[in-house]
Amino acid sequence: MSINFSKCHTVLITGASRGLGLQMVKQLIGSAERPKKIIATARNPDAAEELQALAASNPGVDVVTLDVTSDVSVDDAVQQVESIVGAEGLNCLINNAAINISCNLDTVTRDAMLKTYESNTVAPLFVTKAFLPLLRKAAVQGSGMGIHRSAVINVSSLLGSVQLNWGEMASFKSIAYRASKSALNMVTRCLAVDLEADGILCVALHPGWVRTDMGGTMAPLSVEESISSVLPVISGLTEENHGGFVDYSGENIPW
Amino acid sequence: MSINFSKCHTVLITGASRGLGLQMVKQLIGSAERPKKIIATARNPDAAEELQALAASNPGVDVVTLDVTSDVSVDDAVQQVESIVGAEGLNCLINNAAINISCNLDTVTRDAMLKTYESNTVAPLFVTKAFLPLLRKAAVQGSGMGIHRSAVINVSSLLGSVQLNWGEMASFKSIAYRASKSALNMVTRCLAVDLEADGILCVALHPGWVRTDMGGTMAPLSVEESISSVLPVISGLTEENHGGFVDYSGENIPW
Ligand SMILES: NC(=O)c1ccc[n+]([C@@H]2O[C@H](COP(=O)([O-])OP(=O)(O)OC[C@H]3O[C@@H](n4cnc5c(N)ncnc54)[C@H](OP(=O)(O)O)[C@@H]3O)[C@@H](O)[C@H]2O)c1
Ligand SMILES: NC(=O)c1ccc[n+]([C@@H]2O[C@H](COP(=O)([O-])OP(=O)(O)OC[C@H]3O[C@@H](n4cnc5c(N)ncnc54)[C@H](OP(=O)(O)O)[C@@H]3O)[C@@H](O)[C@H]2O)c1
Repeated sequence: MSINFSKCHTVLITGASRGLGLQMVKQLIGSAERPKKIIATARNPDAAEELQALAASNPGVDVVTLDVTSDVSVDDAVQQVESIVGAEGLNCLINNAAINISCNLDTVTRDAMLKTYESNTVAPLFVTKAFLPLLRKAAVQGSGMGIHRSAVINVSSLLGSVQLNWGEMASFKSIAYRASKSALNMVTRCLAVDLEADGILCVALHPGWVRTDMGGTMAPLSVEESISSVLPVISGLTEENHGGFVDYSGENIPW
Repeated sequence: MSINFSKCHTVLITGASRGLGLQMVKQLIGSAERPKKIIATARNPDAAEELQALAASNPGVDVVTLDVTSDVSVDDAVQQVESIVGAEGLNCLINNAAINISCNLDTVTRDAMLKTYESNTVAPLFVTKAFLPLLRKAAVQGSGMGIHRSAVINVSSLLGSVQLNWGEMASFKSIAYRASKSALNMVTRCLAVDLEADGILCVALHPGWVRTDMGGTMAPLSVEESISSVLPVISGLTEENHGGFVDYSGENIPW
């Protein structure tokens, strides 16, 4: 599969300061069939030097401030993005920003549970709600389902699969993160049910275990390897995937 | 199946002031094979008149104050329960207390998401953690898995099944509640993985759609019907059910 965003005019990525979000921006810029407008958001753009350099040297890349946990920040971002995308609306929203507070059953705190939920589950829901007018604007202009029309991609994790949290796969102890991603999968499914009538595709996506600050040095995949698979999967999504949970190779993951 | 708690000496139920929790207490008291000690907890026992009357007129029923969202309250409750159960420890912890803030995609707030998560997901985890020493005390005295030894029953909901949130089943819009129960299912599975070595059974249980303050008047089941099925299911749980998601008829529910 190739990265084909030629019919996806506008894409927005949260958490693009580093890791997988930054890599998505890089590879979208570098692809032959790139989206016209790439909106890379970060909660603290001044600290995101690599992203700033990319935006400065490439046309059609806008950096917008967005702290996904803040309503004020989300509202400001929506206003800016509206003026960037104009009548085209937003074709593809990638909710990528997330945190992982390392903890196990012994060390987990109520606060770690709540903070993780706030960033990883509640934030993608409220970012999506806020961008709905722009997603709907893009959706009315197309037919079928996919990023050529309008799509919400929630970056989830295999660790959010309740089914797979057993046996060997259960050796990753990260209860606050796991619970937040299971709940994100439910949020994705709720969004899919409610946004189907608008023609907005909603999918939960596992990017693989990747060497980022979050994934750590033991992970088998480089950011290049992950995103080289993730972007073609995203560009190939159809109504078949609506409300589903797919990984970076396009395989379905059990809930 | 019959309600057989004769080998379960001590059981604790959260949220026993009304609804399903209160009904569990009633039917456990009324069963021929009742547990020796029933610990009925409520965040505000003074307001739980029916529960108080039951405890006053039946031996072996203790009412203990427990607000599941408060660490101070949880710690106080553990101390009291320790002196009630003594060397026997706690055979069965039923995490039943929960809230449902009615909301859909339009009306949901960040606060509703977080409050629901705090009560329905985080609280059962921290109540379980706090009672672990008493659960382990009971567990070392038995073999196999079940309430004769030591068990954690997390009262979940069919609405927490991501898989089943589709088509007709998706007509119940309650995104904050749904997400909290999906996350509770993950928490249950994490507990199951970590407490298996201790011999503590962990299960997520759907009690059916029941006419309580939460379930509303349209629900098909009375509290008697639900709990007449739920208690035999709980007393029949074995290692086969460990880490699973069962309903009031004992059927498995997909995640
Ligand atoms: N790496 C893996 O192995 C792996 C596996 C499965 C799933 N995932 C998922 O993939 C996504 C990206 O992960 P990653 O590995 O790239 O993580 P990462 O290297 O830790 O980067 C996280 C990104 O999220 C941003 N972020 C966190 N909280 C934010 C907030 N409140 N507002 C705005 N941005 C925020 C960070 O911004 P700052 O720079 O400002 O902190 C950063 O850009 C996450 O959803 C993660 O759960 C990763
Ligand atoms: N009814 C249904 O159709 C249905 C279906 C599926 C699952 N369930 C689940 O079944 C369980 C019982 O539900 P229900 O129908 O009996 O609900 P309910 O009638 O609304 O009763 C809820 C109970 O939880 C208690 N509670 C709430 N927050 C608490 C806290 N912070 N600390 C201590 N107690 C607290 C309430 O105490 P107060 O009296 O002090 O408020 C009350 O005793 C819940 O887990 C629910 O999610 C119910």
